[in-house]
Amino acid sequence: MKVPGELNPGSRILLGPGPSDCHPRVLRAMSTPLLGHLDPEFLSLMEDVQAMLRAVFQTDSKMTLPISGTGSAAMEAAVANLIEPGEVAVVGVHGVFGGRIAAMVERAGGRAVKVEAPWGSPLDPEDIERALKGDGAGAKLVAAVHAETSTGVLQPLAPLARLAQQHGALFLADTVTSLGGHPVDLKGWHVDVAFSGSQKCLGVPPGIAPLTFNERAMEVVSKRKEPCRSWYLDLGMIGSYWGTERVYHHTAPITMIYALYEGLRVVLEEGLESRWERHRENHVALVAGLEAMGFQMNVEREGERLWTLNAVTVPNGIDEAKVRKHLLEQHGIEIGGGLGPLKGKIWRIGLMGYSSQRHNVFAVLAALEEALHEQGRKQSPGAGVAAALESYRG
Amino acid sequence: MKVPGELNPGSRILLGPGPSDCHPRVLRAMSTPLLGHLDPEFLSLMEDVQAMLRAVFQTDSKMTLPISGTGSAAMEAAVANLIEPGEVAVVGVHGVFGGRIAAMVERAGGRAVKVEAPWGSPLDPEDIERALKGDGAGAKLVAAVHAETSTGVLQPLAPLARLAQQHGALFLADTVTSLGGHPVDLKGWHVDVAFSGSQKCLGVPPGIAPLTFNERAMEVVSKRKEPCRSWYLDLGMIGSYWGTERVYHHTAPITMIYALYEGLRVVLEEGLESRWERHRENHVALVAGLEAMGFQMNVEREGERLWTLNAVTVPNGIDEAKVRKHLLEQHGIEIGGGLGPLKGKIWRIGLMGYSSQRHNVFAVLAALEEALHEQGRKQSPGAGVAAALESYRG
Repeated sequence: MKVPGELNPGSRILLGPGPSDCHPRVLRAMSTPLLGHLDPEFLSLMEDVQAMLRAVFQTDSKMTLPISGTGSAAMEAAVANLIEPGEVAVVGVHGVFGGRIAAMVERAGGRAVKVEAPWGSPLDPEDIERALKGDGAGAKLVAAVHAETSTGVLQPLAPLARLAQQHGALFLADTVTSLGGHPVDLKGWHVDVAFSGSQKCLGVPPGIAPLTFNERAMEVVSKRKEPCRSWYLDLGMIGSYWGTERVYHHTAPITMIYALYEGLRVVLEEGLESRWERHRENHVALVAGLEAMGFQMNVEREGERLWTLNAVTVPNGIDEAKVRKHLLEQHGIEIGGGLGPLKGKIWRIGLMGYSSQRHNVFAVLAALEEALHEQGRKQSPGAGVAAALESYRG
Repeated sequence: MKVPGELNPGSRILLGPGPSDCHPRVLRAMSTPLLGHLDPEFLSLMEDVQAMLRAVFQTDSKMTLPISGTGSAAMEAAVANLIEPGEVAVVGVHGVFGGRIAAMVERAGGRAVKVEAPWGSPLDPEDIERALKGDGAGAKLVAAVHAETSTGVLQPLAPLARLAQQHGALFLADTVTSLGGHPVDLKGWHVDVAFSGSQKCLGVPPGIAPLTFNERAMEVVSKRKEPCRSWYLDLGMIGSYWGTERVYHHTAPITMIYALYEGLRVVLEEGLESRWERHRENHVALVAGLEAMGFQMNVEREGERLWTLNAVTVPNGIDEAKVRKHLLEQHGIEIGGGLGPLKGKIWRIGLMGYSSQRHNVFAVLAALEEALHEQGRKQSPGAGVAAALESYRG
């Protein structure tokens, strides 16, 4: 066959729902030659990665490690290790990713009792409680998405974790689009199990996914009657490699772990509080700009909006795909469209990790103005950028 | 917490069972900034990767793609998409990886009928046939490992594939340690399903794993009564993203796909035949050297030995772990120990991908001599290297 040409992708600013732009130090780390996966130097690197993950998750759980796959692999590792055939999980569904957790509960042989909320609002703890007393009575697990990438909603976790505990269930949180961008305090909120992705607010490429189980959750895992339905995601065996025994399970993805190592160093050097504040500040400026341009946010109340993923309603009469195409082709800026029932109705503008920067806020506001002008929408020139500038001035 | 220091691993020559050394072009490709996973440029890159994988596998199967995980993830994707609860698979077990396939058949709810051979010999097709007529009658699947990384045995696949076809079963091959180092001719051998890894003979880091299903196998998948037990590895959904519909399933591991793209370009630029010949030639020279030094190979007959993974019996009275430690600490050379029943009894010397080079053959032979000398073993100085040099002269 004719061998394809050299790798030469166009330059991008990734402001979609993920991946976000990698930190340059992370990219550089990935060209480091490999160590073997049982090399003493690599084992020591693994311990450092685990310690840094614990710091970022704000947990002291021993079983904190990266899964060798993307965020969905960690999601399935969480569900498939906890749920056995016939068991019940109460799952909050107010977007694509809650629905995905429910689907994985079914794949594990369990029954998912879905508690829904509109795609743009958080879950109501009373609805979760009703489920735990009703159709979901005796549930082993309550699960919810902290940051719904499909809708832009931030879900307070502590009240749900409390309900789970009251009903003798474990609490599982999806922190894919929050970890490293929003406060995540697993220990303080009594979250038993959580997972995340690398390609959102940690500034690392997709392909490695943080996961943590506390002791309460590991006790449940150790008491399983049947083995986990996935060999690859079996936490007992994965834990033997990441724990002290160092028993070979599968070959660790060395380069992705280098990338995570460097990404976590960058996060901790910046400091968690400063990093959250940077994400908040850029989000507030972007929203100020968008509102000054006449846009409406998909999530009504500011306190319920993600800082990391901004869902904007597409105005009537605008061809939303054409706008995204303009941004990509004219400026190399990627933003996302809607998923499921929100398809065609919203744009999703991510400000995550290394992508959450002032100049990106200015650039996307100006590029949006240009793209809408192309479709005949008139507005006061530069209004979005002006409002963002004012927001930064405070 | 105190942030760990900069990423600064020691220099290594990876001659173990994998990962092998990456090609420098692959390492460089990994520092390329990301594209989004639905970016038109990335979609075109995916098509090129698929075309190159078909060329390397020697197949024209449409469903040829990389799984977002390591070789074990692709192994489980193969098994979990084919086997439904209660179904039977006849699995050749003559090393760790055949045993792993059997374990995955059980996780999928199936029954594995194991056909064994000594750990150092290939499977006997007559034993497979006996199983297909006996305990494994009605089997949906026959599976075997082409290149057993745990023993160094090369398994001829065509006779087994023929038997599977005669008994109405699909044939699945593990080509993790052969693809790119030994001839692999899926179409010519009538292999229905195969998977591989990136970190052996393709010169790419671990974390992305080639998988291919032919039409006969996909028809079986499409007729499943129950969904695949793993959501993450569900080939129907993964195929919708890699196929023409481009439906989002999980975020593709962009950088690992860059790496695979570059690795496959390197493979095809060298040419499959030249690449196999390089692996053969270096293997023959290494064995000549080892035998001149008085070592015995774990696999008796040359025709049954892998070119990519050389299993050498540890001589009596030698502390094998101390030898490996010497190589690693004094020379940065990694070789592997034995697994399972071969633990402590063999070394595994990999010559795979970019690691399969003449200077590595010389280096490991000389370093072995030094390590054995340290343990008091006397031999004619330089005998191993001399025999290797002669082998290259032909």
